Amino acid sequence: MSNDLKWNSKITKVEPNNVIVHGYPIQDLMGKIRYSDGLYMILKGELPDEKQSKMLEAILVSSIDHGCSPPSTLAARTVASTGAPINAAIAAGILSINKFHGGAIENAMLTFQEIKATAEKENIDLSTAAKDYVTKTRNQKKTIFGFGHRMHTDDPRQKKLYDMAKELGFDGPYIEISLAVKDSIKEVIGKDLPINVDGAIAALLCEMDFAPILANAFFIIARLPGLLAHIYEEQTDNKPMRKIHPTDYEYIGTDKRSLK
Amino acid sequence: MSNDLKWNSKITKVEPNNVIVHGYPIQDLMGKIRYSDGLYMILKGELPDEKQSKMLEAILVSSIDHGCSPPSTLAARTVASTGAPINAAIAAGILSINKFHGGAIENAMLTFQEIKATAEKENIDLSTAAKDYVTKTRNQKKTIFGFGHRMHTDDPRQKKLYDMAKELGFDGPYIEISLAVKDSIKEVIGKDLPINVDGAIAALLCEMDFAPILANAFFIIARLPGLLAHIYEEQTDNKPMRKIHPTDYEYIGTDKRSLK
Amino acid sequence: MSNDLKWNSKITKVEPNNVIVHGYPIQDLMGKIRYSDGLYMILKGELPDEKQSKMLEAILVSSIDHGCSPPSTLAARTVASTGAPINAAIAAGILSINKFHGGAIENAMLTFQEIKATAEKENIDLSTAAKDYVTKTRNQKKTIFGFGHRMHTDDPRQKKLYDMAKELGFDGPYIEISLAVKDSIKEVIGKDLPINVDGAIAALLCEMDFAPILANAFFIIARLPGLLAHIYEEQTDNKPMRKIHPTDYEYIGTDKRSLK
Amino acid sequence: MSNDLKWNSKITKVEPNNVIVHGYPIQDLMGKIRYSDGLYMILKGELPDEKQSKMLEAILVSSIDHGCSPPSTLAARTVASTGAPINAAIAAGILSINKFHGGAIENAMLTFQEIKATAEKENIDLSTAAKDYVTKTRNQKKTIFGFGHRMHTDDPRQKKLYDMAKELGFDGPYIEISLAVKDSIKEVIGKDLPINVDGAIAALLCEMDFAPILANAFFIIARLPGLLAHIYEEQTDNKPMRKIHPTDYEYIGTDKRSLK
Repeated sequence: MSNDLKWNSKITKVEPNNVIVHGYPIQDLMGKIRYSDGLYMILKGELPDEKQSKMLEAILVSSIDHGCSPPSTLAARTVASTGAPINAAIAAGILSINKFHGGAIENAMLTFQEIKATAEKENIDLSTAAKDYVTKTRNQKKTIFGFGHRMHTDDPRQKKLYDMAKELGFDGPYIEISLAVKDSIKEVIGKDLPINVDGAIAALLCEMDFAPILANAFFIIARLPGLLAHIYEEQTDNKPMRKIHPTDYEYIGTDKRSLK
Repeated sequence: MSNDLKWNSKITKVEPNNVIVHGYPIQDLMGKIRYSDGLYMILKGELPDEKQSKMLEAILVSSIDHGCSPPSTLAARTVASTGAPINAAIAAGILSINKFHGGAIENAMLTFQEIKATAEKENIDLSTAAKDYVTKTRNQKKTIFGFGHRMHTDDPRQKKLYDMAKELGFDGPYIEISLAVKDSIKEVIGKDLPINVDGAIAALLCEMDFAPILANAFFIIARLPGLLAHIYEEQTDNKPMRKIHPTDYEYIGTDKRSLK
Repeated sequence: MSNDLKWNSKITKVEPNNVIVHGYPIQDLMGKIRYSDGLYMILKGELPDEKQSKMLEAILVSSIDHGCSPPSTLAARTVASTGAPINAAIAAGILSINKFHGGAIENAMLTFQEIKATAEKENIDLSTAAKDYVTKTRNQKKTIFGFGHRMHTDDPRQKKLYDMAKELGFDGPYIEISLAVKDSIKEVIGKDLPINVDGAIAALLCEMDFAPILANAFFIIARLPGLLAHIYEEQTDNKPMRKIHPTDYEYIGTDKRSLK
Repeated sequence: MSNDLKWNSKITKVEPNNVIVHGYPIQDLMGKIRYSDGLYMILKGELPDEKQSKMLEAILVSSIDHGCSPPSTLAARTVASTGAPINAAIAAGILSINKFHGGAIENAMLTFQEIKATAEKENIDLSTAAKDYVTKTRNQKKTIFGFGHRMHTDDPRQKKLYDMAKELGFDGPYIEISLAVKDSIKEVIGKDLPINVDGAIAALLCEMDFAPILANAFFIIARLPGLLAHIYEEQTDNKPMRKIHPTDYEYIGTDKRSLK
């Protein structure tokens, strides 16, 4: 065989007794960086600064779980209830994160980027470009992603993310665009839809300059602890092969409490 | 329909404009806790203290990537090369984390717990129980999990984890057992096998009182950033449907460097 | 790179303008053999005779679907409802086929093989070995796989499979053992449990000399058309992200009819 | 809970001691119909006639395996080599069947349907519409799916499928379109590309009036026996965690032979 299959990678160098990620010996990273810093670094090639680190950590924490109703949770529990190994149940949960569930993040990123590009190309301000986008999309009877929620009219996660964005200096053009789209939806369509958590994460991932194609993966990583907790609870507290009702469940956990 | 399918969960309460995880409003957690704290809390019901937090973070960072050769990486890249959406490529990577890849953590946890239980039951010291275990397992021609590595004779990740365990107060009976098993393997079998990173993580997850059934999931979460980076590189830098050689690749990334 | 990674396979030879499966040019097989013959041949290396062909086909047809309630169906529909590509929804369905769902086939095969081995080793007849097995398993409070069904007390699939087995000459020792286990359950435990479809398939796969490790795969292949039909119906007739009730559905299809 | 989650399905009615698929009691189907007939019927609601039955069976058999090189095979083997349960290895294989692998069938179906619609709308003949399509697609530098193959310049599967189509009466407009596209590629682009097996299956699935969205699933079902055989061989004949070379393997199976 010739060497014509040889290929290259820029991620990690592994030698005997050395694991070096983007140039950093792994043992130097351990105890020094956060998991989310590692995620940032392995995708970008450089460690985040303290502000980027805090912002990404908050994004991941914001989506750690959303109770029993998301289809990823129900799919993971359903697979778990058949006696599956944990990795199979996790995989099924992840396979549920698609266009209609989690996928709004990627679409909202593409929307915000398109609006920014239009503003630059046509030399108009962001709010005009946002309004043009909303008008065009309404006329095409297409969906505007990242706005409105079945349950939350005033999502505490969105508010917290935007407060942190301001504090940490991520309140740039994409945040502005998201707010302008919200206003335009009200003005053009007549609906008062909140920016939802997907839309907020989308704006922030744009501000942090991540590629839209990675959006789904950020949501997957964020939600994994929740998926795992549901799988574990399913296999620990419930009988195998039970019928899992998608809405008729009750929260019986710890009462509301404050962080110390 | 009767209500007989009603079920309970202790994880997250979701109400209009409220997402409350184990009693904590999600917006209170954002900006305050690490992702890894959220993982700890969603599984245990309580937030970790600072030492637990640091220890778990280091465990996750230790396994963030191991280059191009692990089967989970190759499976994820292979699926990615077919034009799969990212979640499908991630799922394939996760489905590769089994008995022979990552699975040593769970088996090593079970081993260490068995040795501790034997010591307590037979009122013998841990090193005697460890030696008995090694002798028995050798005689049964079974594998002792968590020791030896194809490539690393002195794994920097294991050393760093054990240094941190000492510093943070996690150098309890399971660490002692792992060291005693290492010594017994040398004495009984005559092989000088290092504790590998799986064995080290196993000892620490025992010290932190996690269930062995969760071991695989910790490895999956730890490795996800690496899987994602490989999938992203595959889809960004390589042609679809290329033949992915499992060993003939070269690291062409950043040179070795120090953390500032 | 040396050639030390070279490996061998006995399944299919592919050359320019030739695809040769176990020696047969693929174009010679097309139009001549059934899909199920191809399945038999690719696993065994030889084509089935007409009786083996008919028996395997009936096994596959017996499990083509079981309505909306199986967890594999619900998992596949749940993933499908999120806008997943069809292969992801199929994968989630397949990941649900485990120990408690479909897995009884493998366990029943192992049971029947164990009883046959015991009879031979101890030179006792099959019914005595079956009774010993039932007694032992009852005393260990373990499950006897392949008997009893939530819904079917007299499963028409089992009856048809056993009728065909008799007609085609597959009513050998494993069928005898399955009947003896059924009788012993009644005698020893006092329950009149039918052989279920899993138990019947298990006995027949033993008669056809397939390895128990393949049992799950036969069920997966058999059920795939059903999974696909449910996924297709979910994406065609239902709204995305609907809440999928696990029991409250109604069959609104074609009325009962006879084959012409 | 109200009944507002109630839903309907047209596929299978399950009652105590009755499993009725599209109106047919399952035991009436067993022993009478082929697996592929069941697939046809569960998707279409009606059993195929003898010609449809033969055509679909040949399509499924045509793609049963393609040796060790397809990424679905390599992904399935890679996962299998980690000690995965068979369903996880199958799932990984299926997750590899995407845009660049198997996906050409769906795209070729959409192409052929678009050409037919154009011909009807513009009242031109099929070959003119085909040439217009090829010209347009070439000018847009887009791919024409279903033509050309890395290895087969004269694919025996395509030839056999088209011979059978003629014999069984499926040589309608879509076959004609596929041949016209082949001619137009030669005329317009100057390349003599064969219709590949994906293109041939696409034309036939159009002739049989299946929805393009199902194309991928037909390929998945067709390839499942092959995936399974590779998984089984991997776990039976090879060491766990071996490095799986994507091209350096040798066929060591049965010599070429004729069907009796």
